[in-house]
Amino acid sequence: MNRLVGADLFFKCENFQKTGAFKARGAVNTVIQLSSDIESVVTHSSGNHGAALAWATSLREMKSFVVVPTDASPFKRRNMERYGATLIDCGQELESRESVLHDFLEKHDATFIHPYDDARIITGQGSATVELLESECNVDQIWVPVGGGGLASGAILAANGNVEVVCAEPVLARDAYLSIQTGYRQPPLPPVTIADGLRSSLGELNFGILKAASTQVALASEDSIIHAARLVFEMMKIVIEPSAAVVVAAMLENPSLVAKRVGVILSGGNVPCPHEFG
Amino acid sequence: MNRLVGADLFFKCENFQKTGAFKARGAVNTVIQLSSDIESVVTHSSGNHGAALAWATSLREMKSFVVVPTDASPFKRRNMERYGATLIDCGQELESRESVLHDFLEKHDATFIHPYDDARIITGQGSATVELLESECNVDQIWVPVGGGGLASGAILAANGNVEVVCAEPVLARDAYLSIQTGYRQPPLPPVTIADGLRSSLGELNFGILKAASTQVALASEDSIIHAARLVFEMMKIVIEPSAAVVVAAMLENPSLVAKRVGVILSGGNVPCPHEFG
Repeated sequence: MNRLVGADLFFKCENFQKTGAFKARGAVNTVIQLSSDIESVVTHSSGNHGAALAWATSLREMKSFVVVPTDASPFKRRNMERYGATLIDCGQELESRESVLHDFLEKHDATFIHPYDDARIITGQGSATVELLESECNVDQIWVPVGGGGLASGAILAANGNVEVVCAEPVLARDAYLSIQTGYRQPPLPPVTIADGLRSSLGELNFGILKAASTQVALASEDSIIHAARLVFEMMKIVIEPSAAVVVAAMLENPSLVAKRVGVILSGGNVPCPHEFG
Repeated sequence: MNRLVGADLFFKCENFQKTGAFKARGAVNTVIQLSSDIESVVTHSSGNHGAALAWATSLREMKSFVVVPTDASPFKRRNMERYGATLIDCGQELESRESVLHDFLEKHDATFIHPYDDARIITGQGSATVELLESECNVDQIWVPVGGGGLASGAILAANGNVEVVCAEPVLARDAYLSIQTGYRQPPLPPVTIADGLRSSLGELNFGILKAASTQVALASEDSIIHAARLVFEMMKIVIEPSAAVVVAAMLENPSLVAKRVGVILSGGNVPCPHEFG
């Protein structure tokens, strides 16, 4: 893989993290700060933040509710339920998600936890980068995927200007790229990329942090995302989901942006085993 | 996985080893002991020993030839060629392998390296168990797959009676099981198990070591091997081949044989990425 990318790569394998994705970090950092009289929390998620929040709330014996798009991955639905979440279906559009969430909050006494536009979440996600920088890898650059921007803005804060953070984004969901180009937060594109964890709109806090650091955003096509996931499977023998493969794909598509010693955050591994495997 | 098996499991991930399998250990331990005037080595292999020997010989600028059954995994063929091996096709029967190898040795000045019935190979494979025992896992039992018996006999020598070694074998290739039951080395069954690395006949040296330690052999059905590979994929996010999954399958099928703190050697991960992945 080093030869293919042309750099020394150091992978932070958040696919091995609790609940199968880095989202466990932000969720636990948020839930631990909640008042103990809170009984229920609610969020919206395509799956990984929902599972993380369900896991974190179960540690404090709180209930969790997750507004989930109807086309969410069945594997991720099962993962959320396994950790104790109650799922609430909404349509596939962002508007439907907002209205279903609004209705739920009107009728229930629950605390809303935003999946990424929240300082506690951002700080939690940043701990992946803290650990990477505290290791002896001595990286001079870190690549992270960007969707809502929780992981990316946490990485930028943790790197604190000492190490460059480059964001990777699917071409089909390039609102972060366009936001950085124009200097204004752009609306999300239709949620069609295979990288289902990166379909969401870049958050406001998150955009502010990316913009202040003049963050570069490298793009990856759908084909190269799939190719990257397959390379990691066959050469590294680990399972990553498309939203994680975006980083490897963007490095392969943008070699001129890649430094010499690169930390690569593989964000998650929540994909079903194909039927034909084994 | 601990809950499913009912034990604390400590995995030795030889799927992350050089060439994708534990075989790199025995190959390098053998090749490093060869006289420097040897120019070529030859072996027979379904893939993993061949790739390991190709890698090890390339470090000493020797050539490697591998007699390969026609029905060997195309993925493993590519892996051997990637490390520099020259492949020589033989039929699917063990007899054809022997005759093709014999013909090759008559015509070429090459040194034969047996894939498992060789003290240097056994010692090398044993280093996986040495590392597991030197770690702070404090296991009281080690599970390994058994095919030719290189990994298993190496584990038994390395454990030296201090920790029990249990072997896992497919029902469809249970010559080690039958050999231990009868006290005499039994012929191999037809090579049809999905665990292609375990189709070979138990070696003579290897059987002697298993027998002397009164080793238990636990069996696993083909269905449970596939189920185990899928569990490891979805729960642990790592890729293992069927010959490695046999161990997890045999533990699930034989819970009464499983101790409390168990070292599990996952032997390799050389399987292609399914087309439908990503």
